[in-house]
Amino acid sequence: MKILVDAMGGDNAPLCVLQGVSQAAAEFGDGMELVLLGEEKAIRDCAKENKIDLAPFEILNCTETIDMHDDPVKAVRHKKDSSLVKGLTMLKNGEADAFVSAGSTGALHVGTSLIVRTVKGVKRPALATPMPGAKQNFLLLDCGANVECRPEMLNAFGTMGSVYAEKVMGRETPKVALVNNGAEDTKGTPTYREAHKLLKANPCIHFAGNIEPRYIMDGDVDVVVCDGFVGNVVLKLTEGVAKTLLGMLKKIFLQNLITKLSYLGIKGGLGELKRMMDSEEVGGAPLLGAAKPVIKAHGSSHAKGIKNAIRQAKLCVANDLCGTMEKALAEVAAQKEEADA
Amino acid sequence: MKILVDAMGGDNAPLCVLQGVSQAAAEFGDGMELVLLGEEKAIRDCAKENKIDLAPFEILNCTETIDMHDDPVKAVRHKKDSSLVKGLTMLKNGEADAFVSAGSTGALHVGTSLIVRTVKGVKRPALATPMPGAKQNFLLLDCGANVECRPEMLNAFGTMGSVYAEKVMGRETPKVALVNNGAEDTKGTPTYREAHKLLKANPCIHFAGNIEPRYIMDGDVDVVVCDGFVGNVVLKLTEGVAKTLLGMLKKIFLQNLITKLSYLGIKGGLGELKRMMDSEEVGGAPLLGAAKPVIKAHGSSHAKGIKNAIRQAKLCVANDLCGTMEKALAEVAAQKEEADA
Repeated sequence: MKILVDAMGGDNAPLCVLQGVSQAAAEFGDGMELVLLGEEKAIRDCAKENKIDLAPFEILNCTETIDMHDDPVKAVRHKKDSSLVKGLTMLKNGEADAFVSAGSTGALHVGTSLIVRTVKGVKRPALATPMPGAKQNFLLLDCGANVECRPEMLNAFGTMGSVYAEKVMGRETPKVALVNNGAEDTKGTPTYREAHKLLKANPCIHFAGNIEPRYIMDGDVDVVVCDGFVGNVVLKLTEGVAKTLLGMLKKIFLQNLITKLSYLGIKGGLGELKRMMDSEEVGGAPLLGAAKPVIKAHGSSHAKGIKNAIRQAKLCVANDLCGTMEKALAEVAAQKEEADA
Repeated sequence: MKILVDAMGGDNAPLCVLQGVSQAAAEFGDGMELVLLGEEKAIRDCAKENKIDLAPFEILNCTETIDMHDDPVKAVRHKKDSSLVKGLTMLKNGEADAFVSAGSTGALHVGTSLIVRTVKGVKRPALATPMPGAKQNFLLLDCGANVECRPEMLNAFGTMGSVYAEKVMGRETPKVALVNNGAEDTKGTPTYREAHKLLKANPCIHFAGNIEPRYIMDGDVDVVVCDGFVGNVVLKLTEGVAKTLLGMLKKIFLQNLITKLSYLGIKGGLGELKRMMDSEEVGGAPLLGAAKPVIKAHGSSHAKGIKNAIRQAKLCVANDLCGTMEKALAEVAAQKEEADA
């Protein structure tokens, strides 16, 4: 299995990418070939400076880079020798099995749609992020790639999320829920009401109905579906609230000697809580619906985030995620045709 | 000043309503006449059983009740002798100055629109909730009354929120921000992009641009604007994440003797944090844009929530919130006419 890694993507590239790739190779590198794409000189200089051994990895030189300020469509069309476009093109041509990048979400989304293409029945892939829940992690999609969604797209997200939960997260009969402002079928906008109907009739999923925002983090369901605007709110607000509360807690512990001693008493448990809320622990977000596995790592990923994104890519390839996805979506389409006939 | 209180609204009515009204009268009852609306026998029985002195309050008997399962429009049209419809009608007729209820949000929203009516320039009032921020509280609107909003509505929310922040929350030059999935002007759905333009040109507010969900809780701005679907997500997800995290923290403290001793060390600080995240501390959500002050208390309010909602109602009346709101909205309308001419 050959996995391509964008060495130039993300706030901490290339250093954290190189560290992450090294850790991935050491921890679960068996049967996996890792290829770094980027400015070769910058990669080699960085590795040398930080004593990272690049011997196990192939390096493919790229002369261009796409950054956050680039217009996604223009960048993908014109920067042909960027790590992102080169990597996605190799994936498309069957020269590799998966692509991992912490670069621009917009460019990765557009590039995946235009170059790698999608499986039948999907127009635009969805960004799916594993999130921490009180009982267990769950998958949230779409997390911001598609800010506007038709009901059919939300229904497809349900199918795709369910397949991913089963094949990569190892859930036996994944429960799928739709974000909404009330539990009743009649709640929400016309789009959400129609999506509710479609999801309820979807033969490929176990639909648990609407989920109200205050229960999302309980982790009672495996897949949480919404449009990209709402998904971005859910993902980033959860991060923000957790960060604010843990920050306030820290201030409480720093107040005086007694509170400092108290901190020592629960240091271990608190560390666990922080790890749980750490977006890098679960790794990257797969672009579900792409014809080949493409994984987006968090833009601010450190080594751990990159390593775990590579782990996800490996699982996607090993479990033929894209093939299974295509089959599941075909089944939904056939059922719809039957109902329409 | 006469304030009407719905004695039958909310999960804990009438007991918590009666307790809240008593506390409000004791703490800030000067110059304020409090009237209870509801089933008189149930109110008197409950007061007797719980030794609450009803002597200071007028009681208006109502023979019907509206609950969560009632269709809002039908309930408002047909249950003329419910505490909600009777209270809003008295408000409309100038027989009182404000109405406070912890009952059905939908019915209160519909009832306010149909009976009390809105100030000029507002079609449907917006539910505005004061929320806890790291630096200071801020006002979030709409919190779920209008799940679909046109750009003009979002712009009106900005104006209304700003007036409330100034007149009731005491902010000198309130900063208004629009929820969006990125800081750039071009982010979001077409509706949000258009709303951004309108808010930027709005002469009655200080527009701080888009606010990304992860920074909402920082409390850097005074007013956060979004549609009711997104607002419901922001409000309820914040509650859910905080509840989950504080619950996990509690588990950590209960692990063993050392962690239990640690708890004692930071008990005070932790109590403060819990109070900050307690939705009852800030009281109810005003229905901004209504022609007279209508305050929605949280459905699960206890005495404190009711008391603080009454406090808000008093401030709204004392500061002529509705009159100021009408003037500010007229100014925006005049500016728009000028621009269109």
